[in-house]
Amino acid sequence: MPALEVNPDLQKERNTATFDPHEFSVYWAGGEDRYKEKKALEKLFLEDPALKDDLPTSYMSHKELYENSLRKACLIGEKIRKLRADGEDGVDTYNALLGGSLGAALLKEGNPLSLHYVMFVPTIMGQGTMDQQVEWLPKAWDCEIIGTYAQTELGHGTFLRGLETRADYDASTQEFVINTPSRSAYKWWPGGLGHTANHAVVVAQLYTKGEFRGLAPFIVQLRDLETHQPMKGIDIGDIGTKLGMKGVNNGYLGLKNVRVPLNNMLMKNQQVLPDGTYVAPKNSVLTYGTMMFVRCALIRDTAYSLSKASTIATRYSAVRRQSPIDPNQPEPQIMDHTTQQLKLFPQIAKAIVFKTTGDSIWSMYNVLSGEIELGNLNRLPEMHALSCCLKAICSADATAGVETCRLSCGGHGYMDCSNFPTIYGMTTAVCTYEGENTVMLLQTARYLVKVYGQALNGEQLVPTVAYINEAIKLQEFVNFDGSLESIVKAFQFVAANKVRVAYEQLEVRRKQGHGVEVSANLSGPFLTSAADLHGRAFLAQSAYTELTQVAKHVSPALADVLKVVLELYLVDACLNRIGDFLRFINLTDKDVTNLETRLESCLNRLRPNAVALVDSFDLHDRVLDSALGAYDGNVYERIFESTKKNPLNKEPVNAAFHKYLKPFMKANL
Amino acid sequence: MPALEVNPDLQKERNTATFDPHEFSVYWAGGEDRYKEKKALEKLFLEDPALKDDLPTSYMSHKELYENSLRKACLIGEKIRKLRADGEDGVDTYNALLGGSLGAALLKEGNPLSLHYVMFVPTIMGQGTMDQQVEWLPKAWDCEIIGTYAQTELGHGTFLRGLETRADYDASTQEFVINTPSRSAYKWWPGGLGHTANHAVVVAQLYTKGEFRGLAPFIVQLRDLETHQPMKGIDIGDIGTKLGMKGVNNGYLGLKNVRVPLNNMLMKNQQVLPDGTYVAPKNSVLTYGTMMFVRCALIRDTAYSLSKASTIATRYSAVRRQSPIDPNQPEPQIMDHTTQQLKLFPQIAKAIVFKTTGDSIWSMYNVLSGEIELGNLNRLPEMHALSCCLKAICSADATAGVETCRLSCGGHGYMDCSNFPTIYGMTTAVCTYEGENTVMLLQTARYLVKVYGQALNGEQLVPTVAYINEAIKLQEFVNFDGSLESIVKAFQFVAANKVRVAYEQLEVRRKQGHGVEVSANLSGPFLTSAADLHGRAFLAQSAYTELTQVAKHVSPALADVLKVVLELYLVDACLNRIGDFLRFINLTDKDVTNLETRLESCLNRLRPNAVALVDSFDLHDRVLDSALGAYDGNVYERIFESTKKNPLNKEPVNAAFHKYLKPFMKANL
Repeated sequence: MPALEVNPDLQKERNTATFDPHEFSVYWAGGEDRYKEKKALEKLFLEDPALKDDLPTSYMSHKELYENSLRKACLIGEKIRKLRADGEDGVDTYNALLGGSLGAALLKEGNPLSLHYVMFVPTIMGQGTMDQQVEWLPKAWDCEIIGTYAQTELGHGTFLRGLETRADYDASTQEFVINTPSRSAYKWWPGGLGHTANHAVVVAQLYTKGEFRGLAPFIVQLRDLETHQPMKGIDIGDIGTKLGMKGVNNGYLGLKNVRVPLNNMLMKNQQVLPDGTYVAPKNSVLTYGTMMFVRCALIRDTAYSLSKASTIATRYSAVRRQSPIDPNQPEPQIMDHTTQQLKLFPQIAKAIVFKTTGDSIWSMYNVLSGEIELGNLNRLPEMHALSCCLKAICSADATAGVETCRLSCGGHGYMDCSNFPTIYGMTTAVCTYEGENTVMLLQTARYLVKVYGQALNGEQLVPTVAYINEAIKLQEFVNFDGSLESIVKAFQFVAANKVRVAYEQLEVRRKQGHGVEVSANLSGPFLTSAADLHGRAFLAQSAYTELTQVAKHVSPALADVLKVVLELYLVDACLNRIGDFLRFINLTDKDVTNLETRLESCLNRLRPNAVALVDSFDLHDRVLDSALGAYDGNVYERIFESTKKNPLNKEPVNAAFHKYLKPFMKANL
Repeated sequence: MPALEVNPDLQKERNTATFDPHEFSVYWAGGEDRYKEKKALEKLFLEDPALKDDLPTSYMSHKELYENSLRKACLIGEKIRKLRADGEDGVDTYNALLGGSLGAALLKEGNPLSLHYVMFVPTIMGQGTMDQQVEWLPKAWDCEIIGTYAQTELGHGTFLRGLETRADYDASTQEFVINTPSRSAYKWWPGGLGHTANHAVVVAQLYTKGEFRGLAPFIVQLRDLETHQPMKGIDIGDIGTKLGMKGVNNGYLGLKNVRVPLNNMLMKNQQVLPDGTYVAPKNSVLTYGTMMFVRCALIRDTAYSLSKASTIATRYSAVRRQSPIDPNQPEPQIMDHTTQQLKLFPQIAKAIVFKTTGDSIWSMYNVLSGEIELGNLNRLPEMHALSCCLKAICSADATAGVETCRLSCGGHGYMDCSNFPTIYGMTTAVCTYEGENTVMLLQTARYLVKVYGQALNGEQLVPTVAYINEAIKLQEFVNFDGSLESIVKAFQFVAANKVRVAYEQLEVRRKQGHGVEVSANLSGPFLTSAADLHGRAFLAQSAYTELTQVAKHVSPALADVLKVVLELYLVDACLNRIGDFLRFINLTDKDVTNLETRLESCLNRLRPNAVALVDSFDLHDRVLDSALGAYDGNVYERIFESTKKNPLNKEPVNAAFHKYLKPFMKANL
């Protein structure tokens, strides 16, 4: 499409904004260097015509979509190879591509080679001995072999001990014999497993000398390197179409007496000696680290989803005019409807808060990693508990937020050319993978009731739960004056009381004669809602700390906008849990009405800068890939443009008319 | 797939249920006759091999999906013709097919001929003169012409007066000249418009003698009856892929100096005489009736969506075993996790309550229609207000409920073979079409603040809002004893107070100097949440009345189960709005904890009958179309079966390996 002038309604928004979006964009990218790097990568990848699709993916069949995804994944891999040859760090580039906005622009339905880079290679690095790394890494690094990571099974997900795939050591040949004992034991879901990878790290129950030893990872060759035919004993394929991530080539895998050499078991943490002697791992806690790492990254991904969805919906809401507010006036920009602002602006605020919280969790994780390497595991349970509930809350809120943005665009948000359906598919998946959200909240809750007991015993708790110490001392929360500090403090008081109720409920069940585990199951809803409040109290504190901090280092114009964002975030978060606030804090009807009118005031104050704020997210039009959300706001032109790509519109009369409809119409004549 | 034995875990559930699902199924179908009719239609349509797909729709391209949908739509039309020739009522059959469960089994992504039957024909019946009906109906009835209904435009939806398409009467030729004056005036969204219909009722702004007369409907021929080529001046096509309803062939339409004869304007309500004299409609209120009719039907559709989703998720939760509750016990059925029950059972209860409420609203609508025909329009505003908020609430809750069910199935719910993605696409669309939900709530709210003012003036209000009269007399709600009656009464008290707050907020804005309309816009969130509570209070009352009534006429065993369903529904509904309850009613922390433990008790009591309840919905396996939800519970076998249909799995090595991946792997060697 030729370059068009910016829609005048959108231009007006930009002209009247009170701050410079570029200043925020640089902060958002992580500073001047990162910003430049981002722009360079966008240029390199987005201007390559081979990486553009003529046909939108929604018109491709599942098979065409896969083939096109693999084509582009290989092209991207080739570009990364060249960057590495030129001295750039290929992994960083790849991570930038996957974690950042570029990945979505290049392969919006996911990349069949992703798991090779993000799971296969890192698993060998993390769990292989030095010798094994020397053997496998160069080949994997240069993509002479393509791997994936096969853990989850058709009948077994979160509960790893339930996995059925088994590896029996045969000392006579110094090989493991790997088997899928039942249908529910088939490996299911690994990305790239279907038709792409020729190797996988397969997680199986290890048996040596006839004894069960626990889970272990094995490198298994799946396909011939020359012909790509499945190896003997390997039953493999693609699991089928899905709600999203349609190009990832998620696969299934059955193994029948597949033999791999002794040295294919990754042995950094545990070993099997040639005679079958098993050497157990010294520290099982280390694997927590990787899971936490991934969950921290996911928090940033949810921010990224919200930034995309809110950009599209906000720009569209500046362009679309509908339903007069005053019947004597023309139809206003729909963003002028307060109910529309209530849909959009909290999503913008959440995008910002989830991002800054994700960044600060990332820093905490890095400090923790250093401590762990020095043998100090003290903060591991605390960080584990925090990362679990934040992953659950941010993914659930982002999923809901994306849908709120889509629905705010009326029927047009339902069209694939809006890109909302794809963003939704990618975002909601985060609720399930890397730990299903309810399971995550229950893990956090178990930690919380444990530390609540410690607090009752007078112990001083670690930083992220220390608010429980304070709450226990208070009979009542009397300092709610509506200030942002008091909202944060109130969130902590409410969270502490939710933990108290959950703790007391567990006690009640135990006194009724139930065991610890059955009591925990019965009290499940009390536990998950306590974990939810703990996470939200952390987010409130983090939003306050981080945004107040950022505001100190930016221009006064930007600082003013960020203050409104913070206030909107906190007031909205409080009203979304007002039942819990009213339950534990003595607020009047009038207090609540005041919070509600204050929310309205925040919306009105953010209104002039809404477009500039989403502009600040600096999302390339290729990343947004949305007829509704492009920078120039030529919504209707772009929607029309999209109809020209529709294969149904390539011919004025579809063959089905002559074949089916005409005979049906004429049957009675 | 050959018939398999029922999964033993599922069989165990059926063996231990305390009531007979068949008894409930007959009630659910609407009585013995309707039940038999349903079974007969299922036999006639579902056992026809020509109406089964070998390839699941998710593997078809957009074009293939359309062609297959049209093929089946014509076959279905042919069958209905035969039924009519045999003396059956074709419309009833078609309505049963579309509104009931069969439509989804036959055309799960929607039917490109739907709008012909549900909008084109009824519009001619409702808005055509007797002569026009004689002219057009036989042809439409026999499908010699295929029509659709074109109202919404690319830039104009809910606000009908904003439509741009215009029809200018040319008295010299006695024709209307219809034009699309701009891109945003293109007709957009009508089902079947893309490549299927050859006629449409086009809604346009009417001008005669150079004067604007308001909106009018015109029958316009779009395509040649023999060649199907678009007529002169007609620019037409398919709008493209969407989140759901992928087979509906939603289209766009531009008109350039398209001339239609005077008699093609549907003139029952308003007329244009040959000389261009305009005769205005006597009663503009009549069109409300149709909108209400559709919204009442949509409430039942949302119940139907929830019944499907909860059936799939409940059966899967009986079959799937995961995560031990007691570490010394094997993994339990996931339905034994209380948190899982909390996801599933409220959806089952909502399905039942939305269905019974939909039925009772339907009866109210029929009474009202009779009154309107007698010229009595008194209850029209009340029913309009009620149908608007119920449409919004039921569609929003059903959408959320479907996703809760999907997420309760972990990763497998994300696969298209679960059928959740399609059910979601169909359900969430209801939030937008036939009146966008926020607009619906605002319409209800306007009515509520109006009647609140009347109540303040001492007027007695009509039945569905009479609770406001009572609430105004109370200083305080002191009778909350946790009984179901008191929950219903409390809901009404809370709703009345939400209306009060909204009313007061409007007053505040007006005193600040804003006009009525600007005040309403500023107070938008107060208004929508008041309308939400009004609808929920009605649902609570309706659930209580209807289910208590039903329980009197069924076996004691079934009555006991329905009582648990009712209690679960009310306690859950109350806890979901607990913030509003605490705001207006003096409840303690302990009261809330009691409600929460009571919810837990309801879940535990429903647990033994959960599978039998969803069995009672009597949804054919073809309707569910879900590997996770089939009656026999052979989940893993069905998932495997689905992989065999995957075109990617028809060949062990995909061509993209040789074309892209192998050269990439070997490039460095």
